[in-house]
Amino acid sequence: MTPPVALDAMGGDHGPAETVAGAVAACRAHRVPVVLVGEEARLTAELRRHGATGEIAVVRADDAVPMTERGPAAAAMTASSLAVGCRLVSAGEAGALVSAGSTGAVVACAMRGIGRADGVLRPALAVALPTLGGGVSVLVDAGATADPSPAMVAQFALLGAGYARSVLACADPVVGLLSIGSEPGKGNRLSRQAEELLAAAPVRFHGTVEGHDVLTGRVDVIVTDGFTGNVVLKSVEGCVRTALAMVAEEGIASPERLAAVARRYDPQTHGGAALLGLRGTVVVAHGSSGAATVARACVMAYALAGQGPVAGIGSAAAEPVP
Amino acid sequence: MTPPVALDAMGGDHGPAETVAGAVAACRAHRVPVVLVGEEARLTAELRRHGATGEIAVVRADDAVPMTERGPAAAAMTASSLAVGCRLVSAGEAGALVSAGSTGAVVACAMRGIGRADGVLRPALAVALPTLGGGVSVLVDAGATADPSPAMVAQFALLGAGYARSVLACADPVVGLLSIGSEPGKGNRLSRQAEELLAAAPVRFHGTVEGHDVLTGRVDVIVTDGFTGNVVLKSVEGCVRTALAMVAEEGIASPERLAAVARRYDPQTHGGAALLGLRGTVVVAHGSSGAATVARACVMAYALAGQGPVAGIGSAAAEPVP
Repeated sequence: MTPPVALDAMGGDHGPAETVAGAVAACRAHRVPVVLVGEEARLTAELRRHGATGEIAVVRADDAVPMTERGPAAAAMTASSLAVGCRLVSAGEAGALVSAGSTGAVVACAMRGIGRADGVLRPALAVALPTLGGGVSVLVDAGATADPSPAMVAQFALLGAGYARSVLACADPVVGLLSIGSEPGKGNRLSRQAEELLAAAPVRFHGTVEGHDVLTGRVDVIVTDGFTGNVVLKSVEGCVRTALAMVAEEGIASPERLAAVARRYDPQTHGGAALLGLRGTVVVAHGSSGAATVARACVMAYALAGQGPVAGIGSAAAEPVP
Repeated sequence: MTPPVALDAMGGDHGPAETVAGAVAACRAHRVPVVLVGEEARLTAELRRHGATGEIAVVRADDAVPMTERGPAAAAMTASSLAVGCRLVSAGEAGALVSAGSTGAVVACAMRGIGRADGVLRPALAVALPTLGGGVSVLVDAGATADPSPAMVAQFALLGAGYARSVLACADPVVGLLSIGSEPGKGNRLSRQAEELLAAAPVRFHGTVEGHDVLTGRVDVIVTDGFTGNVVLKSVEGCVRTALAMVAEEGIASPERLAAVARRYDPQTHGGAALLGLRGTVVVAHGSSGAATVARACVMAYALAGQGPVAGIGSAAAEPVP
């Protein structure tokens, strides 16, 4: 049986009020076992408010990483809820970690407390974006590693392909490298060097794709550095919102009728992004996550954890880019 | 009186058939004087098809830069239509250059044939993106300089602010640096260093903005490197198309009713992007431009040229970042 999900109850913009409510929802509505990690008195009080005392376990952590803290300083806080959560995963007492803390802090703490899978240089965030025609494309790295080397970017492609295979049941994922212009030799230094490595990597490499292709489903995995990936992810979310708001503003359709499309690209809907390349399952939820989003992130993390070691990522990591 | 627009008639995916038709439209429908630059026999034949012989001047250029050619090799082709067009601008015989050639080739040829304005390190492409509420934000650099230094990025902000002031009549433009996370210290190496320079630059600097803000009108000028800017521009265009296609697919509104919103983000509509930081006016049109788009680019270039030296960019360049 899969061990419970460790939830960093102190993470996120709203803190324990929303995280505890999310844990209660995950447990009651989705039968996902959750362990809350954080300040004991506050978490116990929140559980009491939900009449859930004794229903959900609390693991004490006396410190919390502030949302503004950067990676190295965050990783040094060894008594933080993030650090304790990572130790639970590392010890096998939790099947996965969920945090709505800042991505940089989660990445730094997970690298230290859970560790990278064999051969992996840096972790990468994977987000499944809905595409035209009802499919999804995995965008990786969506923000874990802002300044990767070309070898790291090439490896993100393997991690993303492993994720597409094991989680999205895509048997033979096609990978595209996000760049500018589709002719060989276009791009920036990083993308050109990554392109050369990818051409020789054990992955089905389509070549480069442009921003136009992010939502068309042209490739199964879109690989890029964490800076570009995060800017693109947020641009996509913002653009869909703006396009639909303009449709409503023009009186073409009411916001209510447009809600189904809006929801597909709402960060509150998909719950979280999987942090790939670690020795354990980690899901990063949006900092602004409310209870429902936290619950979805727990459900997602529990499903990933149930798929065996790091959701197929171990196998991708076993083929490191030379 | 403003001299005519020099049109690189050999540039673009469709070549003289579309560029000559665009010149004829610019001339007849918009009273914009155009000089066609390229292979004499072909251009004369195309003009004849439109009954426009003698109506539009042709300046002979025996060579053409292929769409696949990269910057330095393109700049070395001194008999190309691009090179001849640049010389016309440099000599004052044309008020502006329009090309639908590859951005890299136009940038390289313009730097060589027209030259940079005083103090400018590298040119940058500016695109005006429609925002919620009916305004626009200038995205700069949208693809001219893929690997800028931090000082170049800071200077792009000055160029973009100059463009917003002189072309968009925005008296005191607010500049945001595109990054990930809004806390200081977030981003990649390039954006962090550019952020420090911008804090001390003679510009109204808002700080960083995220991908979410690209279409919200939160700032007047969004500055980034040419790689990220081009990926974002094309993601925006692609996402709006996808969101509207999903609305149509769901049967919420017909494609016809959605066309007004779609047009706002269609690269064929806005005509072209202004290449800032040069000693003359240059407009880069999309490679796939048809006649109507070429005509719009000529109209835009003529208007920019009529605003005096490099459309206010000279004044921005006169305040180089230290």
